[in-house]
Amino acid sequence: MNVYLDNNATTIVDPQVFAEMEPYFVQKYGNPNSLHAFASDTHPGLKKAMQKIYAGIHAPKEDSVVITSCATESNNWVLKSIYFQYILTGKKNHIIISEVEHPSIIATTKFIESMGCKVTYLPINSEGIVEAQTVRDNITDKTALVSVMWANNETGAIFPVGEIGDICEEHNVLFHTDAVQAIGKTPVDVQSFNVDYLTFSAHKFHGPKGVGALYIKKGKELIPLLHGGSQMGGYRSGTLNVAGIVGMGKAMEAAIDALDFEMTDIREMRDAFEDELLKIEDTFVVTPREKRTPNTILISFRGIEGESMLWDLNRAGIGASTGSACASEDLEANSVMEAIGAAEDLAHTAIRFSLSRYTTQEELDYTLKVVKTAVVRLRGISSSYAYAPEGHESGLDAHH
Amino acid sequence: MNVYLDNNATTIVDPQVFAEMEPYFVQKYGNPNSLHAFASDTHPGLKKAMQKIYAGIHAPKEDSVVITSCATESNNWVLKSIYFQYILTGKKNHIIISEVEHPSIIATTKFIESMGCKVTYLPINSEGIVEAQTVRDNITDKTALVSVMWANNETGAIFPVGEIGDICEEHNVLFHTDAVQAIGKTPVDVQSFNVDYLTFSAHKFHGPKGVGALYIKKGKELIPLLHGGSQMGGYRSGTLNVAGIVGMGKAMEAAIDALDFEMTDIREMRDAFEDELLKIEDTFVVTPREKRTPNTILISFRGIEGESMLWDLNRAGIGASTGSACASEDLEANSVMEAIGAAEDLAHTAIRFSLSRYTTQEELDYTLKVVKTAVVRLRGISSSYAYAPEGHESGLDAHH
Repeated sequence: MNVYLDNNATTIVDPQVFAEMEPYFVQKYGNPNSLHAFASDTHPGLKKAMQKIYAGIHAPKEDSVVITSCATESNNWVLKSIYFQYILTGKKNHIIISEVEHPSIIATTKFIESMGCKVTYLPINSEGIVEAQTVRDNITDKTALVSVMWANNETGAIFPVGEIGDICEEHNVLFHTDAVQAIGKTPVDVQSFNVDYLTFSAHKFHGPKGVGALYIKKGKELIPLLHGGSQMGGYRSGTLNVAGIVGMGKAMEAAIDALDFEMTDIREMRDAFEDELLKIEDTFVVTPREKRTPNTILISFRGIEGESMLWDLNRAGIGASTGSACASEDLEANSVMEAIGAAEDLAHTAIRFSLSRYTTQEELDYTLKVVKTAVVRLRGISSSYAYAPEGHESGLDAHH
Repeated sequence: MNVYLDNNATTIVDPQVFAEMEPYFVQKYGNPNSLHAFASDTHPGLKKAMQKIYAGIHAPKEDSVVITSCATESNNWVLKSIYFQYILTGKKNHIIISEVEHPSIIATTKFIESMGCKVTYLPINSEGIVEAQTVRDNITDKTALVSVMWANNETGAIFPVGEIGDICEEHNVLFHTDAVQAIGKTPVDVQSFNVDYLTFSAHKFHGPKGVGALYIKKGKELIPLLHGGSQMGGYRSGTLNVAGIVGMGKAMEAAIDALDFEMTDIREMRDAFEDELLKIEDTFVVTPREKRTPNTILISFRGIEGESMLWDLNRAGIGASTGSACASEDLEANSVMEAIGAAEDLAHTAIRFSLSRYTTQEELDYTLKVVKTAVVRLRGISSSYAYAPEGHESGLDAHH
């Protein structure tokens, strides 16, 4: 049996999404910016897709949703534009992010830091959540931007973006949120709270890889990261990835359609699966499930190296993760576990299961069986299990 | 009859290319950086594609070919990295480009210029070609980079990148070439001349939109434009666009396979078509055909607004261009025509026909007939044709 439980890394393309994209390779292949029928053949599909994308996040017409190549591009764009607009010019000197942002935020702020910007890395609390108060405590009159993700990719923890937005507005500080893990998992409405920039990416909600977006509130203009032929209203140049945009539009529509299902059925399946996992001795989760996206479980199996567990799962046809796929080639410790101050050996024991609307009960039942067998086998050969620290000593709740 | 003669703007995806991409949407959808079989399922296809891409430009293993989202990204990357590495640090203060570079180069240098960098815009000669000597004449000891395209998108003029590379090497200046219009039209071998960075894009050679690349010579490292999860060896972060990369690999292979056909059969078809077009009274081409890519004709029909001609062609099912698709929404004059100093009314009369290996003789015969009819109709209603300046007065050769 093949079971895909790594949907926070990427997702299967919805067959309906692929069906909508398919005509834009060999049939409707024109460059939308050209002045002939081969170009205008692409316009209705593009327009429909953009309408769906705007509608999906409730973006009003006067604001901009700019298509990029991925969330990494969107995130780099916001931060580097802020650098050029505010930091390099000396108007401001400070950016605030959380210490558990995606590498595309953290690596970019490290770069900007090396160019003289001050960067505050907000801590998370013992539940893996950034507290809004920490934003307030760190804003100065030189703070240009706060960038805090909506939902964490590793734990699924939902951060208080509404409160953070309010604080930013109150202090006249720009607010960006990386909502990559939020679309299709929790309602995203850019009109419901104060947010200036919002990042998302199609391949996280059953769209194609290679297409992302950045929402930009009217009046909060950015300097392009990609200068050129003035596509996307001059915000982001480069020949439009027509098939990708059409795919993202359909994927957004399908994600919104499936949102209730994700928030009820998938949540229930996740919760029941988690209940069973937590019956295994010496297992721990960081973030309470009601504070998480409905599809994510980050769980530690004391004494078991995450990579070893992945290996056993993989041999049984199950795909899971130890955390972010983006850093997984480096075999690093889970960054959230590290951030809450877990002991190093615990930080290496985390496994992330991330479900999707394609996940079935049968798949979860099978996975549970495989996990149980793996735990016995791996703890049997674990050199550290006998003397692994108790959970409460490292700030984690133990579930026996 | 539908005839696509706008292949310098974008190309039809080769059905074989699409066939290779297809499994990577709904079937092999894993994130290549994950640690399970859903990820490793993508690895053989990615590896094969990267080998084809390296082979296509003769890049040695020790150099890097980094996949980007488009040529615009590749071009922005080179220029902005040079800005951070050399200009902002004060090591150098000068960049040289040609005045007929693609907007993704020119708009980026304009931005860098606004940040204090000196930029020299090299002129083209009356044949529409940048002369290597102009590079030598403008290099100073503060020149960080020369960026000159390999082949011009509007005229197809091939620029002397070999000579320019030699001059750059001699003066210890970095050399970038935008080879978007060269791949599949002329042999591209990065080992055959001095080049540090080379841009190309899949959708210009029958690959998908949304995937480009930058060749980087070993030792000529750049600062990432997209920081993040360290994909592409840390050069360019962002989840890999697996289908796009696989498509680009196949497209590169097919382009190399078809190169002889392009350089002989397509060239012959183009030449014969051009001969017939030039039999129409008061028509002009800028660049001699032996100095052009084999697929491109930029031709002026005196007294006829290019947009009007496009409209007549489009009504007959023919897609052509007045120049760069990237700027065509602005209805600007042809920039090459402007650069060679053509009178303003002539600069608005250029039409570009760009063929591909999918172009048939029947299509060209049909197009010729439509053009002839359009010329009679449009000159009949032209208010400027009666007093349009003679070709030689504006530095153009008239063909009667």
